[in-house]
Amino acid sequence: MGIADLGCSTGPNTLSVISEIIDVIYSKCCHLGRPPPELRISLNDLYSNDFNDIFVSLPDFYNKMKEDKGTGGPRACFISGVPGSFYGRLFPSKSLHFVHSSSSLHWLSQAPPGLDSKASVAINKGKVYISKSSPQSVLDSYSLQFQKDFSMFLKSRSEEVVLGGRIVLSLMGRSSMDPTTEESCHHWELLAHALMSMVSEGLIPEEKVDTFNAPYYAPCAEEVKLEIQKEGSFIMDRLEAFDIDWDGGVDACNSIETLSSGQRVAKTIRAVVESMLEPHFGREIMDDLFRRYAKMVDNHLSKTRTKYMNLVVSFIRVDQIEGQR
Amino acid sequence: MGIADLGCSTGPNTLSVISEIIDVIYSKCCHLGRPPPELRISLNDLYSNDFNDIFVSLPDFYNKMKEDKGTGGPRACFISGVPGSFYGRLFPSKSLHFVHSSSSLHWLSQAPPGLDSKASVAINKGKVYISKSSPQSVLDSYSLQFQKDFSMFLKSRSEEVVLGGRIVLSLMGRSSMDPTTEESCHHWELLAHALMSMVSEGLIPEEKVDTFNAPYYAPCAEEVKLEIQKEGSFIMDRLEAFDIDWDGGVDACNSIETLSSGQRVAKTIRAVVESMLEPHFGREIMDDLFRRYAKMVDNHLSKTRTKYMNLVVSFIRVDQIEGQR
Repeated sequence: MGIADLGCSTGPNTLSVISEIIDVIYSKCCHLGRPPPELRISLNDLYSNDFNDIFVSLPDFYNKMKEDKGTGGPRACFISGVPGSFYGRLFPSKSLHFVHSSSSLHWLSQAPPGLDSKASVAINKGKVYISKSSPQSVLDSYSLQFQKDFSMFLKSRSEEVVLGGRIVLSLMGRSSMDPTTEESCHHWELLAHALMSMVSEGLIPEEKVDTFNAPYYAPCAEEVKLEIQKEGSFIMDRLEAFDIDWDGGVDACNSIETLSSGQRVAKTIRAVVESMLEPHFGREIMDDLFRRYAKMVDNHLSKTRTKYMNLVVSFIRVDQIEGQR
Repeated sequence: MGIADLGCSTGPNTLSVISEIIDVIYSKCCHLGRPPPELRISLNDLYSNDFNDIFVSLPDFYNKMKEDKGTGGPRACFISGVPGSFYGRLFPSKSLHFVHSSSSLHWLSQAPPGLDSKASVAINKGKVYISKSSPQSVLDSYSLQFQKDFSMFLKSRSEEVVLGGRIVLSLMGRSSMDPTTEESCHHWELLAHALMSMVSEGLIPEEKVDTFNAPYYAPCAEEVKLEIQKEGSFIMDRLEAFDIDWDGGVDACNSIETLSSGQRVAKTIRAVVESMLEPHFGREIMDDLFRRYAKMVDNHLSKTRTKYMNLVVSFIRVDQIEGQR
């Protein structure tokens, strides 16, 4: 059985999804009185991901699995690292039965061309993502890049997933058709504010902000559905949306950590976007930038509790003809 | 088509074997007028190997392959990293068609028990590998550890390789049945001399040398053959032996580098064994040790041009019954 986690990243929770998937398969097999299949598990992320860090944790993972599952016999699961972009082929034809990807597909393969730092005219001035004040061409460029990337994702997976195989994705999204809605872009809006406050103090040249646009897109459910329909080899069988507090909610607030909500949000966002900002703005401004950002988030959350919207989509590989019916 | 390189290590030549294998397959297919198969290529080494370094070089490798092979269509080869010891299962059942391993199988899974640093009595005093002065029990322990490891290697691969699939190994060996022969152990003998010279100057405690034994074994062809026969799922179809100059031979001597033969040998040996010596002897003695070693090698090579002996073995997965005939 071929299983892939796309955009697995590196960190203490990299293997937790895999662990849950294995648990589900084992308990299902146990329930059916069947021996569990050999599992071929592929962990994917970009070429530059720290796979070494994942690999050194594997002996513990295998040992724990042996203890928990009592698989005294031959090894039951084979984990490999598969580096590369999921906006292209990664695996041999018809080799996967289950594909998972969490918090990855809202990252585009690139900032929309025309909005990146190579563009001759900056058309999204003072902003780093879609904003209420962005011209329509910015919205269109982002939407087009999402369509291009997501359709390439589906096309690549359609070759790799066996008939009947399933893909489950979770990604940032929005509930409204309007891409300038607060839940989908306000965390970028505040980041732009923080950057512009540094521009006004002469710490960053304004054109640096004008020419940076995040390779990110939070689609609405309809956009996801449409691409799946257009591609034609998958049938969507479930789509759910749920909210997440910016700061992790009450549980995180009650934790022993004495950070403000804004500081917690800034830490989370920094962990994800710093590697994109640094080459453009320089390492030296990062501490200052995220201190300003934390304050702005605190100020914002004191007035309104904005939430992120997450989409969870499940779809099944079917005959092309069946899919297009 | 499943292909694995076991003990791939990390460095500028990690992908060169893979590259050659792909060339052979493509020219064979071209000759037969058939499209080349999709290639599933697995790079294996221990969990601690630097896979990151290999992975960042893959985009260039894929691009070059696309140029050379003109594969404008879907990707033709899928490279993954599979960390773990090859003295155990690494791959799903019947998933490999060709397995290669170069310069890896002379490394044992561990120093023979009884000779390692946990042993209560040091029985290989003043030596770090089999030596002319080693007691018979040292020779036996090493031979037994090789049999254990190599049979486990064969057993694991017998599950993973399809019927008709082939394994090609190259490893350090010896031409004589006698394991104390110079070609198989003199580079260790000189390392022991270098260490003992430091003992005599009080730079290392003697018991440190007494309790270190290299996890290494250079088998003769008969030992390899015997294990393949005993395991029973492979038929050996070719075995060759060839010599390699310690210092890389005349070509290396004529290179622009102005190192002495001994210095070149010391550099090569250090690159391979330092990571094993360091935890036992401490980092601080390494420079001194390999300076002494280089001098001893120069002195030795001025009297006799000892060579390494390399074995190349090729064997094919057959029906168990056929294999035992």
